[in-house]
Amino acid sequence: MLKFGLLGAGRIGHVHAKTLAANPDASLEVVFDIRQEAADELAKEYGGRGVTDEKEIWDNPDIDAVIIGSPTPLHVPHIIAAAKSGKAALCEKPVAMETAKVEELREALKGLDPTVMMGFNRRFDPSFARVKELMDKGEIGKVEQVTIISRDPAAPPADYIKVSGGIFKDMTIHDFDMARFLLGDIDTVTTIPQNLDPEIAACNDYDAAVIVLTAKSGAVATIINNRHCATGYDQRLEVTGHDGQLNADNQRPTTVSLSKDSYSLSREPYLDFFLTRYADAYAAELNQFISIVKEGGKPTPSIEDGAQALLLAEAAEKSAREQRPVKVGQ
Amino acid sequence: MLKFGLLGAGRIGHVHAKTLAANPDASLEVVFDIRQEAADELAKEYGGRGVTDEKEIWDNPDIDAVIIGSPTPLHVPHIIAAAKSGKAALCEKPVAMETAKVEELREALKGLDPTVMMGFNRRFDPSFARVKELMDKGEIGKVEQVTIISRDPAAPPADYIKVSGGIFKDMTIHDFDMARFLLGDIDTVTTIPQNLDPEIAACNDYDAAVIVLTAKSGAVATIINNRHCATGYDQRLEVTGHDGQLNADNQRPTTVSLSKDSYSLSREPYLDFFLTRYADAYAAELNQFISIVKEGGKPTPSIEDGAQALLLAEAAEKSAREQRPVKVGQ
Amino acid sequence: MLKFGLLGAGRIGHVHAKTLAANPDASLEVVFDIRQEAADELAKEYGGRGVTDEKEIWDNPDIDAVIIGSPTPLHVPHIIAAAKSGKAALCEKPVAMETAKVEELREALKGLDPTVMMGFNRRFDPSFARVKELMDKGEIGKVEQVTIISRDPAAPPADYIKVSGGIFKDMTIHDFDMARFLLGDIDTVTTIPQNLDPEIAACNDYDAAVIVLTAKSGAVATIINNRHCATGYDQRLEVTGHDGQLNADNQRPTTVSLSKDSYSLSREPYLDFFLTRYADAYAAELNQFISIVKEGGKPTPSIEDGAQALLLAEAAEKSAREQRPVKVGQ
Amino acid sequence: MLKFGLLGAGRIGHVHAKTLAANPDASLEVVFDIRQEAADELAKEYGGRGVTDEKEIWDNPDIDAVIIGSPTPLHVPHIIAAAKSGKAALCEKPVAMETAKVEELREALKGLDPTVMMGFNRRFDPSFARVKELMDKGEIGKVEQVTIISRDPAAPPADYIKVSGGIFKDMTIHDFDMARFLLGDIDTVTTIPQNLDPEIAACNDYDAAVIVLTAKSGAVATIINNRHCATGYDQRLEVTGHDGQLNADNQRPTTVSLSKDSYSLSREPYLDFFLTRYADAYAAELNQFISIVKEGGKPTPSIEDGAQALLLAEAAEKSAREQRPVKVGQ
Repeated sequence: MLKFGLLGAGRIGHVHAKTLAANPDASLEVVFDIRQEAADELAKEYGGRGVTDEKEIWDNPDIDAVIIGSPTPLHVPHIIAAAKSGKAALCEKPVAMETAKVEELREALKGLDPTVMMGFNRRFDPSFARVKELMDKGEIGKVEQVTIISRDPAAPPADYIKVSGGIFKDMTIHDFDMARFLLGDIDTVTTIPQNLDPEIAACNDYDAAVIVLTAKSGAVATIINNRHCATGYDQRLEVTGHDGQLNADNQRPTTVSLSKDSYSLSREPYLDFFLTRYADAYAAELNQFISIVKEGGKPTPSIEDGAQALLLAEAAEKSAREQRPVKVGQ
Repeated sequence: MLKFGLLGAGRIGHVHAKTLAANPDASLEVVFDIRQEAADELAKEYGGRGVTDEKEIWDNPDIDAVIIGSPTPLHVPHIIAAAKSGKAALCEKPVAMETAKVEELREALKGLDPTVMMGFNRRFDPSFARVKELMDKGEIGKVEQVTIISRDPAAPPADYIKVSGGIFKDMTIHDFDMARFLLGDIDTVTTIPQNLDPEIAACNDYDAAVIVLTAKSGAVATIINNRHCATGYDQRLEVTGHDGQLNADNQRPTTVSLSKDSYSLSREPYLDFFLTRYADAYAAELNQFISIVKEGGKPTPSIEDGAQALLLAEAAEKSAREQRPVKVGQ
Repeated sequence: MLKFGLLGAGRIGHVHAKTLAANPDASLEVVFDIRQEAADELAKEYGGRGVTDEKEIWDNPDIDAVIIGSPTPLHVPHIIAAAKSGKAALCEKPVAMETAKVEELREALKGLDPTVMMGFNRRFDPSFARVKELMDKGEIGKVEQVTIISRDPAAPPADYIKVSGGIFKDMTIHDFDMARFLLGDIDTVTTIPQNLDPEIAACNDYDAAVIVLTAKSGAVATIINNRHCATGYDQRLEVTGHDGQLNADNQRPTTVSLSKDSYSLSREPYLDFFLTRYADAYAAELNQFISIVKEGGKPTPSIEDGAQALLLAEAAEKSAREQRPVKVGQ
Repeated sequence: MLKFGLLGAGRIGHVHAKTLAANPDASLEVVFDIRQEAADELAKEYGGRGVTDEKEIWDNPDIDAVIIGSPTPLHVPHIIAAAKSGKAALCEKPVAMETAKVEELREALKGLDPTVMMGFNRRFDPSFARVKELMDKGEIGKVEQVTIISRDPAAPPADYIKVSGGIFKDMTIHDFDMARFLLGDIDTVTTIPQNLDPEIAACNDYDAAVIVLTAKSGAVATIINNRHCATGYDQRLEVTGHDGQLNADNQRPTTVSLSKDSYSLSREPYLDFFLTRYADAYAAELNQFISIVKEGGKPTPSIEDGAQALLLAEAAEKSAREQRPVKVGQ
């Protein structure tokens, strides 16, 4: 039984608290948030106690591991604090708001060899993981083209957009990691951004984009993003290899379809958002993290995976602003 | 180029005239119907000339073959006339209204060895034919259970129902032939009839039924019939073998699907009726007939296949009326 | 938090123990089985302690409710014991091996008004429940025909078959309840049984069957059963109404499909058996049971639902043996 | 009955000859090709006579219309000859190898007002046409993103590649027209090209690409091309609007699917190539052309649609070579 501290009692903190509560090998001991009420509420529902001083986690010898679901600017300090207090950490994406901060993080972690895993939950989605597994088994031959469809059901409020770091660091970051999960290192990023919603444009952000990544292998990944989708959380994947193709389709609450006089086999809308759509993925991610903490081994996805996804987000932003392909890390 | 006479300018005559016109190896020369206007109209649209005296077909040495789409009571005399005048015949189902008539037919044809093929068009449907082909290749192992879903979009008018011979001879006859196509000889028929539409009940006929056939092989076929289906012409097939299953699904005008906020991947209704749904089947049936006429060989489905389907229809009717399983041919 | 005793540490006991362990409102306190080792093992994995004397459940004032997963002949005595000791009971199907025993049960329960719910888990399957919900909302109009496909992945061993009560009480019982769930009271049962596997025939049982039920409403339900299915646990439902159709399809581990040069969009096999296929249904069933125990109300499905399903099983067996339609309860 | 001359007896000439032969309102009178044998062969199979002097078409007063399926460099002279001889023309894509030639064409046609339709057959595909129709009816609201998947089953031989004008003019040209059909005028083209097959790279051409088009409306179209696809001719379309999404899926020879122990609902590969996949589209295109010739009206797609598609192909090539977004027509 691993004892957990949780940093951040917001939306993503809620997801992790629920996942912890359902895991027989984990117990939630302390929930930190600067808002006492939020911390208490989460603790009450899923276990442990709420605190507003994060030291109550770092200095608590009973806590084995933490989940970092705090605002992005706190990810780096929280990873460092976890490393220094000898606690394993599962950190939400993105690792930081800019690559410069990742450099600071690398510096601070020198000689510590901490166990840090990045929370790219989609790698653990059973369907996407199965695509990767079949791909690695050679079922479709040499991979040539990847298409990642990733549309949220609805944009977050403007207040969130303003502090989100922009669509590429906040939303596409998952798709960048997925592209790397499937294709390995990426060479060039070309972004064709869209402003469909004027309210988001007013925040100097985009709300839709097509981002094309060229992998060092010669394969190309196309990411199609939209902050809005009428039918729910549109999360699909298609990998085309020389010998075949793998598809991971959307998910719905049930398998029911309805036929009437004007249509046939109409299905339910897609699962509405990440809480339901990726519930299995969060559970599998936690299992993987617990297993690494218990049995040792290099966590995957690692801080360096987080750093690479951030580099891609920065390159995508630059490509969008400068309207040209951008080499990653330049 | 085979020269055709067509007997009957009704709904099914129309289907065959159209199929003939589109076939580069066939030409429609004479259309017979007791209604001059109907015969002329069909001839005008698809070729040839209209006649009200069927002798103009039998005595015409230019005519190689006939398609018999006349009312069912005329099938037997028309087959005999074709045989006597040395013309090949493709005859619509059912071969006759009762088995006693088939005996007369067999008697009359003795020594003539005519080329007669029964118009069980569904055997030639590319999907059903593919199911049979894969089944025969052993893809699903020993066949255990067959399900045939066959629902018309809407019931014919009461006037037609009254002279139709009843649902089993008029509608299920296709499914009986399909069951025999897939399973061979049938041993026992059990019918569970339904009266959903009081107007059809008033004609002393059923408008829906479940008919279960036990094949001599031990396999069982379930036929689900309904004279009405909200979504169109519901025509499906499922064959379960020891090692797998084959499915033939419904067809739609296009592959388009629509997703909105309350549903996803909604497809168009099914093709509305046999004219569109089985257009390819009628064309393939005609090709097969032409090829047999030209190159010789035993036509399949044969008169005996027609006779067997009729026996099954009679057994189904008896089973429905007497509420018990009925042995075929007893 | 409701405290549970579990009777029976066999396969179905295992399912319930697991479901209890995952439910935050339930705790497993005592596991009874005549085999100490089996009881201990289950208790060790999912909570509580193992006992071989069932009195340790009935006499334990801490136990609020029991789940009866004992062999079928013990269902009636265990329900009675639960009723007498004031404990709510969730009892596995079938309620008894024969209707005569149900009469004894009714007699014994007179004046006790116990809370007893029958474990027809499929009513709680999200897809089947959604079909019922949409049907009840009138989405497809008056219901005309139901098709229930229910095939197990593989037959149980002959030893189990011999004490199972036969395919209709052991396997079809779920489908009988589903037919009643959808169509209400059933009038007539017609069974067309099959013997595909000689080993099961040697046990004087069938291993496949088509069972057609006529509802008092005029609707007809066709159940297609097979103890074996190559592709997994084939569990589908189709309800045809005058205005449309509802379908509940099979489930697979993921949404992944594979296309290669000889096929396209090939999906994974179906979920293998009830443990995975109906995991959500068992969880929802338990929630419903807990909610009734806590808040009061008549449990559904009730003992009388269990009795009706058993009557259908008996009628189906009689129909199979006597090769004729059988009126329910006669 | 419209009388046709056909220019070009190659692969695409074959498609048109076959389509003409099957159309009851058209007759093929003369087939021109510089190779007498090729012209004769086509004429023998589908009607008319073969000639090697194109004047036999232009000077023939019986010919009403021509289909131009000659090599691309001849399209412009053949359109001009048709216009001058007063014959309507249906011309294959692309209208010319470079935009400069289109300017010559416009000049030559001044004052002639000829009936010229461009052969962008995919606009007439029933599924794509249905997508457009539903889109125009407002079913999905304001269009935001289009995805066009277009993969050939196998690359043409290197000899063809060398004279093809390159992937964008030869293959993507259809997708450019489809994007314009759906989104109207295009502003910017960004190409991410791929070289998967070294033999095609050696021809200084690409064999795969992602091309992103920004429409003046703000919508974005992503075209994914590949000269090779293991599963057949991968031709799909997806249009996402603010209120919903339209999908047009691939087509297969039948609706049959196969389930076995290791997979379920495996479908056949896609229709193999444009001859079968777009047979209906070619037939509908010809009907539209005949109807315009007979009844008058502006042909769509027009020469200007052809010119715009060519501009997009040139922009795509430039974008690929210069690795930057390119404004159309600059």
